[in-house]
Amino acid sequence: MSTAGKVIKCKAAVAWEPGKPLSIEDVEVSPPKANEVRIKVFATSVCYTDWEYLYESEKGKKFRPFPLVLGHEAAGIVESVGSGVTKFSPGDQVIPLFLPQCQECDRCRSPKTNHCRKNWEHMQGGVMADGTSRISCQGQQIYQFLGVSTFSQYTVVPDTSLTKIRNDAPLEKVCLLGCGVSTGYGAAMKTGKVEKDSTCAVFGLGAVGLAAVMGCKAAGARRIIGIDINPDKFGKAMTLGATECVNPDDHTKPIQEVVVELTNGGVDFALECVGYPKVMRDALESTTEAWGLCVIAGWTEAETMCVPVEKLLMGRTLTGTYFGGWKSVQDIPKLVDEYMNLNLKLDEFITHKLPLRQINDAFDLLNSGASIRTVINLW
Amino acid sequence: MSTAGKVIKCKAAVAWEPGKPLSIEDVEVSPPKANEVRIKVFATSVCYTDWEYLYESEKGKKFRPFPLVLGHEAAGIVESVGSGVTKFSPGDQVIPLFLPQCQECDRCRSPKTNHCRKNWEHMQGGVMADGTSRISCQGQQIYQFLGVSTFSQYTVVPDTSLTKIRNDAPLEKVCLLGCGVSTGYGAAMKTGKVEKDSTCAVFGLGAVGLAAVMGCKAAGARRIIGIDINPDKFGKAMTLGATECVNPDDHTKPIQEVVVELTNGGVDFALECVGYPKVMRDALESTTEAWGLCVIAGWTEAETMCVPVEKLLMGRTLTGTYFGGWKSVQDIPKLVDEYMNLNLKLDEFITHKLPLRQINDAFDLLNSGASIRTVINLW
Repeated sequence: MSTAGKVIKCKAAVAWEPGKPLSIEDVEVSPPKANEVRIKVFATSVCYTDWEYLYESEKGKKFRPFPLVLGHEAAGIVESVGSGVTKFSPGDQVIPLFLPQCQECDRCRSPKTNHCRKNWEHMQGGVMADGTSRISCQGQQIYQFLGVSTFSQYTVVPDTSLTKIRNDAPLEKVCLLGCGVSTGYGAAMKTGKVEKDSTCAVFGLGAVGLAAVMGCKAAGARRIIGIDINPDKFGKAMTLGATECVNPDDHTKPIQEVVVELTNGGVDFALECVGYPKVMRDALESTTEAWGLCVIAGWTEAETMCVPVEKLLMGRTLTGTYFGGWKSVQDIPKLVDEYMNLNLKLDEFITHKLPLRQINDAFDLLNSGASIRTVINLW
Repeated sequence: MSTAGKVIKCKAAVAWEPGKPLSIEDVEVSPPKANEVRIKVFATSVCYTDWEYLYESEKGKKFRPFPLVLGHEAAGIVESVGSGVTKFSPGDQVIPLFLPQCQECDRCRSPKTNHCRKNWEHMQGGVMADGTSRISCQGQQIYQFLGVSTFSQYTVVPDTSLTKIRNDAPLEKVCLLGCGVSTGYGAAMKTGKVEKDSTCAVFGLGAVGLAAVMGCKAAGARRIIGIDINPDKFGKAMTLGATECVNPDDHTKPIQEVVVELTNGGVDFALECVGYPKVMRDALESTTEAWGLCVIAGWTEAETMCVPVEKLLMGRTLTGTYFGGWKSVQDIPKLVDEYMNLNLKLDEFITHKLPLRQINDAFDLLNSGASIRTVINLW
């Protein structure tokens, strides 16, 4: 019996207020309105950003309305489409996108950026284009997260915040392309444009950092130094392409001096995948003068980083990446293809699988450093 | 009578110790050794960096040995050459270069940078490749500045720190290409790669900033906003290509907010030509998210600048320029050609002319904001 046009009752993990664990609730998901798509979410992974918005929201500058359904790294199948939707049909395999690509705004038309302007204010405000959310619980509107909210068995997204992928891709694997892996891989490949035979240092070997290592290898880097204070990550980093790993705690010298010595002057590319301002500075200072490039992929909203001006004047460049620089709608299906063609690894990132009711455990696994990615099976 | 092979006695402005005015002295300039060239300096302009190393050296981190002869923005004629010099002959018109281009090191072979490795340590230490200086006074060795020392009627430079220019170029004008004008012009044209129809903001309208304005115009920028707290600079900025000028002191809002409002979201390119960390941050924050580029051209050695990380994550890039990114030996003669072909202005930068004995007045003119460039006629 078709559910199209009807409200769907299903399970979701609701964040009722900041600082409290998620609560599994029965929610109601309205049908999609114009230019919206309702999707059945099969698998969602849990990203550090989800945790941050729940437990550290007071540190951020931006207003995030509660209650909300978090989750932004997922894959699913189109259940129904609203009026005006031409690019999706029920049954399509899809990845929801926290960064849209409308293909119409000035930024979408520019090859220089992936920062689509579409729906930005609404997405930050937790609602769809009409100012309301499609999810409710106990009669109360539940806000959406970045236009997606994938910690729910069903969700509704704008049709510009969704990309269609091949139907033979395993959703419980490619969900990782919804955020972390694409961000790290793109930080190296797309934003950093890591060069063949170059030397690279990757700071932080969580999912984003490991994906950055993989991106450096795919780009043909000659030397890839993985850096983390948790040596448990080193094995995976070596599997994904690191040529050596360094634990800053094993050295009395600052890590940037260690990297500069190891590479006789500094690396060509440094990728910061932690989100700590001090590490960002360390990363920049690890690059060689003359042409060193430091890409910030680690997320932080409210903090400031400081750099000695002379490091910049001597030829270094500092930039940031958002979703790895990928134009989301057009590029993510290509990354799915890379995975299916065995050119991009995803299985290695999945250390745990849990059902939705144990989603809070996934946060614990992430924070303890025990997991890279936990995939939540929503059904 | 040829002076080749002989010690030349001439006048020079000697900096005996930090914080004291320059003193005009009779100095002795030795003949050039292997791979060195002795030049008769006809005109030198006075750059803020000269003043800084004299009066603010204690703020810098780097050791600058005194006594020394400052000056690094000049033009002259080859007097004689040492053994092994093949590219220069007596009578050649030349511009000495504080940044060499050896054309042999890995950096010279890379299109990505102009940071030649040649003689770096020696130049910072105030000596030639053999560890000694060619200038002495009252029997005492006088250190050289950045391998050049142009506040002297004669000086000796490495043959990699010199470029030959056309013989019809007026030395009292093209001397400006030895530092400031090339730096600002290149910050826009070469390092920043300012694009046609773009919007630009130039912070600081001294010689470097005015040259950056000229570079933005040459690159075809649609809108060029000149920014300075001294409105006396605005007329010259408009002459050189600014489409409007803003005095931060005329606004209660921070200057970056003013620029963002003026441009409906921020400029494509911001060029910092002051050398103050606070202005560097203002400049970065004046750029648009998605693709804003901030180039630091203002010089400071010991200071740190801070930026909100989110500004970078949202697609901005921060970099620095050294001598405008120009490969010195090959590119400066092309800028001379541009001047001779009336595509690059220099006369507009020269506000004062003084004889060597009044060189301290040139510092006063610079610090009072009264001058853009004072050209010192050494003969």
